[in-house]
Amino acid sequence: MKVGIIGGTGDIGKGMALRLSQNHEVIIGSRKEEKATLSCDACCEFLKELNLPFDLTASTNQGVIDTCDIIIFSVPPETLQITIDSLTGLEGKLVVSLMNPMERKDYFRYAPPEEGSAAMQLQKMLPDSKVIAAFNNIPAKQWNQISEILDYSVCVCGDYEEEKQIVMELVNSISELQALNAGPLAVSATVEAITPLVINIAKFNKMRDVGVYFR
Amino acid sequence: MKVGIIGGTGDIGKGMALRLSQNHEVIIGSRKEEKATLSCDACCEFLKELNLPFDLTASTNQGVIDTCDIIIFSVPPETLQITIDSLTGLEGKLVVSLMNPMERKDYFRYAPPEEGSAAMQLQKMLPDSKVIAAFNNIPAKQWNQISEILDYSVCVCGDYEEEKQIVMELVNSISELQALNAGPLAVSATVEAITPLVINIAKFNKMRDVGVYFR
Repeated sequence: MKVGIIGGTGDIGKGMALRLSQNHEVIIGSRKEEKATLSCDACCEFLKELNLPFDLTASTNQGVIDTCDIIIFSVPPETLQITIDSLTGLEGKLVVSLMNPMERKDYFRYAPPEEGSAAMQLQKMLPDSKVIAAFNNIPAKQWNQISEILDYSVCVCGDYEEEKQIVMELVNSISELQALNAGPLAVSATVEAITPLVINIAKFNKMRDVGVYFR
Repeated sequence: MKVGIIGGTGDIGKGMALRLSQNHEVIIGSRKEEKATLSCDACCEFLKELNLPFDLTASTNQGVIDTCDIIIFSVPPETLQITIDSLTGLEGKLVVSLMNPMERKDYFRYAPPEEGSAAMQLQKMLPDSKVIAAFNNIPAKQWNQISEILDYSVCVCGDYEEEKQIVMELVNSISELQALNAGPLAVSATVEAITPLVINIAKFNKMRDVGVYFR
């Protein structure tokens, strides 16, 4: 399966590209193809130096949609609407949301849109796509540390069972991540809210890169 | 410090009494003292058989408030108002909420009151008490399995730093539980919501007694 990352030049997008391209055909997408190419070249260089196999190319966000089976949305929630408005052809596609809308005051607070969660908002914007929430609670820095084992639990939520299964397999293909079926897409509100929680826990307890394990 | 459990004859209340009474002076409270005594006798019998030390007595819920320093509310969220209305003297007291309001449809959903969380609702009902949320996500059955090690992460939320510290020490005194400062009381909404999440995860992934670890 071809995996495309919309907003693939951001920190998390790049980290996911590094991790996923070792086992999958991955396309880094960006609004501008040159930006995607720069990011892709840096990733390829990095993986070559480590003598790791990879299958990674660059394209526009639209190119990702036109050619990929799994479309990962790794964009800031604030720019979601403008990104969606600039794209076509998402009907019927498997779309993965890893967005966690939050605001920072004296601590980080979950700030969901009125739909209930970012994933539910994305599903409403794309009624003919199949939105699955996953990868929400993985500490951002851990994506890039590719020599480090990732063994967190990863909640996967969605209303399409077949697509949920595909995303769970994708999760389980990365390092030692453990995919867990967390139920329908509505549950993504709780899963997204765990991200500001773990950031707060790290801060208040002098811990680093806190993730979550359900056992 | 004397620890009292309001609603101490329920499953979780009894399990907490078994665990806490090994290191603390604990009073099981109930609406009716006879009920508390029955429950207390059973706990004492059980601990004696295991040759474990304990300090456990019974009283009414009002008796718990009159004599204890830490008041744990282990009542179903539905009966919270009626319980509060029947009690006096909670002003200035350290009150612990472990309530997780939820509803069961095809899966468990977090069903918070309009205040945002059960702990925030309790704080509103008791404006002169110091409410701390803790112990929310521990699988109910694990309280009673006192030969089993409990090593979950326990989020502790509250707006009173000194009282939060006391509750964190209480958490850390039980088996190998790890207390984590999760921030102000408002964060309890996310912590409470994790309980239906872990119940769903257990159900959908054929796991048992799922708890949470933040690492």
